[in-house]
Amino acid sequence: MIYLDNAATTRPLKSAVEDAERALRELYFNPSAPYAGGLQTHREIETARQEILSLVADQENFELIFTSCGTEADNQAIFGSVKRGNFVLSEGEHAAVYECAKELKNRGVDVRFAPLDRDGSVNVEALLSLVDENTSLVSVIHVNNETGAINPIERISEKVKQKNNRTLFMSDGVQAFGKIRVRLTKNIDFYSISAHKIGALKGTGALIKRKKVNLAPYLYGGGQESGKRSGTENVFGILTFASAAKKKFSSLDLDGERILRLRERLFEKLDKNIFVRLSSEKGTPYVLSVAARGLRGETLVRMLSDQGVFVGTGSACSSKKQYSRVVEACGVDKELLNGVLRFSFSPENTAEEIDEAAEIVNRAARELLGRVK
Amino acid sequence: MIYLDNAATTRPLKSAVEDAERALRELYFNPSAPYAGGLQTHREIETARQEILSLVADQENFELIFTSCGTEADNQAIFGSVKRGNFVLSEGEHAAVYECAKELKNRGVDVRFAPLDRDGSVNVEALLSLVDENTSLVSVIHVNNETGAINPIERISEKVKQKNNRTLFMSDGVQAFGKIRVRLTKNIDFYSISAHKIGALKGTGALIKRKKVNLAPYLYGGGQESGKRSGTENVFGILTFASAAKKKFSSLDLDGERILRLRERLFEKLDKNIFVRLSSEKGTPYVLSVAARGLRGETLVRMLSDQGVFVGTGSACSSKKQYSRVVEACGVDKELLNGVLRFSFSPENTAEEIDEAAEIVNRAARELLGRVK
Repeated sequence: MIYLDNAATTRPLKSAVEDAERALRELYFNPSAPYAGGLQTHREIETARQEILSLVADQENFELIFTSCGTEADNQAIFGSVKRGNFVLSEGEHAAVYECAKELKNRGVDVRFAPLDRDGSVNVEALLSLVDENTSLVSVIHVNNETGAINPIERISEKVKQKNNRTLFMSDGVQAFGKIRVRLTKNIDFYSISAHKIGALKGTGALIKRKKVNLAPYLYGGGQESGKRSGTENVFGILTFASAAKKKFSSLDLDGERILRLRERLFEKLDKNIFVRLSSEKGTPYVLSVAARGLRGETLVRMLSDQGVFVGTGSACSSKKQYSRVVEACGVDKELLNGVLRFSFSPENTAEEIDEAAEIVNRAARELLGRVK
Repeated sequence: MIYLDNAATTRPLKSAVEDAERALRELYFNPSAPYAGGLQTHREIETARQEILSLVADQENFELIFTSCGTEADNQAIFGSVKRGNFVLSEGEHAAVYECAKELKNRGVDVRFAPLDRDGSVNVEALLSLVDENTSLVSVIHVNNETGAINPIERISEKVKQKNNRTLFMSDGVQAFGKIRVRLTKNIDFYSISAHKIGALKGTGALIKRKKVNLAPYLYGGGQESGKRSGTENVFGILTFASAAKKKFSSLDLDGERILRLRERLFEKLDKNIFVRLSSEKGTPYVLSVAARGLRGETLVRMLSDQGVFVGTGSACSSKKQYSRVVEACGVDKELLNGVLRFSFSPENTAEEIDEAAEIVNRAARELLGRVK
């Protein structure tokens, strides 16, 4: 099996699972319990919180709220921030942001979508032109999950604040965290991350926020997470998250260089008579999106699956749509829209896998092309 | 160590963790992915869903939405149902319901609290008198998490519907599921459950709902859970939940009988000069709440912790309050309010543990009483 769908989810790191295993055997107490076991569990969560937070932000100005996933982090930031005024977001947002915006629009909020450039990054000029004195929130995804385009959120957020310093700025960092370097600046109010994209588990995410920004809870109840997110903490998930995050960041630069070479190696070997590159070379090393002219990506994905090569067609989170709204918003030709394949990598991938995958992909595409013609 | 705080959380069942372990090693795919691994993961979630659902409801009329915890299930049911009119709930609701009600009240909703009887069950007459033609939702906890009182939700929901058949009825079943028998009737629209109270993991819960009832999503995004709960599914948590639930239900009646004997054995051995029983004999076998006259439960809990006996003071979810609003609502004397101890059991507890715990509790209470006097 060659697994090249790591942007959809990653195989849990053995070391991270082992590090957290105590939560399944000994450290199973309720972190709110006032006796020794509870206090110990609580302390371990607090350590995990600071460990994860410190990887991308300073602990003086930022805090981290554990959530059940990146989606929940996005929902909390958005529904907690947009009470009045308008909401500006890029066309390249993940469904976890985009669908919240659609829901807010249904509720009568003025929602404004900023167009994308060809590579899937937001057109900054256009975005800024939508921001005005009534803008409550601006959302720009850090690394686009479909094309891999990197939005320079430090610079964008600075310009947003120059236009309106009361506007809050959020960024979905799910595909960036643990993969590209980031240091949150004072202009970034919310940053959402997810555990299962970096070798930890589905069921854990976090919202990093500036301490100075007020945010209502989204789940009400027992008052966990300093009252900002009720519900008994997912201890095993949180400890696995911290372990995986530390591991990822310890080799982030080296991994990135190696994976960049894998990405380019793969593209080099793909049949250029069939495949058109969608991802920019300046995008994240971890994603290579291409489109097969005149072919259905979904059919190709199934053929590849039969031969043990697992790749994506775009966002696995919204697999029911015919084609991707994000790729469409990049201005990609209609005849390419159905043929998108997304290869996404992890440090576990090898050059041999890449070579073998390229061969299988080319062969499958040629076969399918023969059938179609 | 003698662990008697199983209503706060349970030690994960080894068998359930082992059953689900594949999700950490092999079955780690994104359930939305269109290739073999994704489809297989998706199928396993669907099997888990039907297995859990069928334990308490018929699959023709009910469906199950996986959530990240019981709290999320409660929040979704409440915020999705109460759009207008009034909301009637018992004073004995868990914080996950009670705090939502408080938030709704802040937003201007007419929220009506029904008083409790001495054992912590809701006063049904009083509850019904609050229901009128404008009642959107009634919430009655199934088994009270602090006293263990069982509310006859089948009968209460029937009477609510007789008064207003457009009123929705929900019940937090977190302390009932897997512990006492229940079969959801057509009068029960929502029922929330949690994995970590029955030997599965923190981070997984579910909302069971009648298919005929519309419910808005609470988390928007990729459209998982048939669009009713977005966010990548917590596969490991869900599979562990299904395994633990099946195991619990397979021995539910026998476990209940044995634990009832443990509960009574414990109470019998407690020093009646100090401890007053709060839990009714008719309550769940799994909870025994008592109050120590003139003592602080919290201090006692810490002393017991030092001697390896772990018990609760009430709801671990809201440990910051001085005393429990639920126990107060039972009409318990002021001098007892601070002295509440909650013993809660699991099938892993033995008679020997109970005897030892009783002795340690009596000794600690006498010692503390000596200090206080």
